[in-house]
Amino acid sequence: MSQAADKVWTAGMVVIGDEILSGRTADKNIAQVASWLQVQGIRLTEARVVSDDMGAIAAAVNALRSAYDYVFTTGGIGPTHDDITVDAVARALGVPVVIHPEAHAILKEYYKDRPGGLTEARLRMARVPEGSDLIPNRMSGAPGIRHGNLFLMAGVPHITAQMLDGLTGQLEGGAPLISETVGGFIPETEVAEILREVEKAHEGCQIGSYPFFREGRVGSNFVVRSTSRDVLDSAVDTLCEALAEAGFDFTPGGI
Amino acid sequence: MSQAADKVWTAGMVVIGDEILSGRTADKNIAQVASWLQVQGIRLTEARVVSDDMGAIAAAVNALRSAYDYVFTTGGIGPTHDDITVDAVARALGVPVVIHPEAHAILKEYYKDRPGGLTEARLRMARVPEGSDLIPNRMSGAPGIRHGNLFLMAGVPHITAQMLDGLTGQLEGGAPLISETVGGFIPETEVAEILREVEKAHEGCQIGSYPFFREGRVGSNFVVRSTSRDVLDSAVDTLCEALAEAGFDFTPGGI
Repeated sequence: MSQAADKVWTAGMVVIGDEILSGRTADKNIAQVASWLQVQGIRLTEARVVSDDMGAIAAAVNALRSAYDYVFTTGGIGPTHDDITVDAVARALGVPVVIHPEAHAILKEYYKDRPGGLTEARLRMARVPEGSDLIPNRMSGAPGIRHGNLFLMAGVPHITAQMLDGLTGQLEGGAPLISETVGGFIPETEVAEILREVEKAHEGCQIGSYPFFREGRVGSNFVVRSTSRDVLDSAVDTLCEALAEAGFDFTPGGI
Repeated sequence: MSQAADKVWTAGMVVIGDEILSGRTADKNIAQVASWLQVQGIRLTEARVVSDDMGAIAAAVNALRSAYDYVFTTGGIGPTHDDITVDAVARALGVPVVIHPEAHAILKEYYKDRPGGLTEARLRMARVPEGSDLIPNRMSGAPGIRHGNLFLMAGVPHITAQMLDGLTGQLEGGAPLISETVGGFIPETEVAEILREVEKAHEGCQIGSYPFFREGRVGSNFVVRSTSRDVLDSAVDTLCEALAEAGFDFTPGGI
C-alpha cells in the first residue's frame, strides 16, 4: 500500500502534425493535457512533436510507452489522407487496424441526416488498432481511442478537452502535484541564492523561476511545487520571509 | 552542386522546462523557431519537451544531434538554480563548462550601473560548454550560445526572437518550403478524396487539412506546401478548381 501511495505516475505525450513543426499552428494540447494530468496525479514527463510520418509516429509512441505509465497522442485521427495516427500506432503495437463496431454505429448515427452521409472518408474515423476501446466525444462524431495505457486524442484542442473530460477520474494516479506562485518586479538574478536555499531546505519541493518583461520592467514569478500541502506551505512561507527580509515587494499568487 | 541543392536541411529542437510540462506555460518557442527555420530553408523535423533534469536534457540533445543537421534548445540558460541547460549540454558533448571571456565582459558592462552589480548568480550566465561561440542578445545582458550546430536559446520567447534575428542568414539551408492556404466553411470529411488526389498528382507537394469550428459552423483550411513555386501554384490551382467543381465556396489565403 505505501509503495503504491509513493509511486509517481508518469505520462509521455506525442503531438502529431506538420502544422506544428512548420510553425503554422502553435500547439495548445501540451499545456492542456499537462494541466489535466496534474489533477489526475500523473506527471507529464516528456512530450515529443513529430511530423505526419508513419515511422516517426511509431518510433515516438514506442519510445514513450516503454518509458512512462501512460502515453497520450494528439492529432492525426481525422478523415483526411494526412491522418495516419491510427495506422502508425497499430504498427507500433504490432496489431492490425480494424473497424470498431461501436465507432461505426456512432458515425452512422451522426452522419445520418448530414449531407453526404457516412462516406468512405468519414468511415476512416471508425478505424482503430485492434483491441481498442473508445473515448467518447460529444463535440463531433469521431471518438478518441484507448488501447491499454495509450490514448489517441484529437488535434483540435477543444475536441481533446471533451475527450479528457470523459476520462477524468478514470486513470490511476498518485498525489497531485500542487503549486503556489509568488511574484513581483524582482529580477531573478537578485534572488537566485534565496530560491536555491529555500528549495534545498524543503525536501520534495521544486521552485521554478519564470522571468518576464512587462511595463518596461523586469520581474519574475516563482512557482513552488510539491505533492505535500505541508511542505508547500512551509516552503512558500520561508520564501516570502526571505524576499521580505531582502527588501523585495512581492504578491502572493504571482503577478 | 546538384546534390547540395537537393539536400533537405533538418533541425531538431529541445524545449526545456518544468513550466511547460506542468501546463503552467504554453510553449511559444516551437512555433517561433519553426517559422524562422522555414525561412532559412531548414525543416524542423522533431521537437522534444523535457523537464529541468540533467539526464533528460542530455539524452534529448544527443538523440537529436545525431539525427538532424541542427539542434536548437530553448530554456534553462538563466541565472537561477533550475537553469541547468549549459551543464546538461556540456555533459552531452563531453566537454567542461567554462566562463566565456566575451560573455563575462558583456555581463560586466551590462550590470555595471545596475543594483547589485555582477553577482555570482548573474555570472552563471557567462558559463558555456567549452568551445562555444556567443549569440548576441540586445534585449538582456545574457547571450545565447552556439556550439557547432547546436544553439542554446532563451526560454522567454521575445529574447529568443532577438537571438534568432541575430542568426538570420548565418545557417546553411536549402530551398525554403513555401505554402499557400485555401479555406472555407467546408467540412474536411467532404473533400478528403479531393485533397488526396491533388497531393498525389503533384510530386513534392504536401497538403495539410486543418479543421475548425467557428461561428457555430465547421470549416477547414487546406495548406499546400512545396519547395517549388511552380508545383505549389499548380497544386493550388487544381485544388481550387476541384473545390469549385464540387460546389464549395472557398477563400484563397484561408479563413
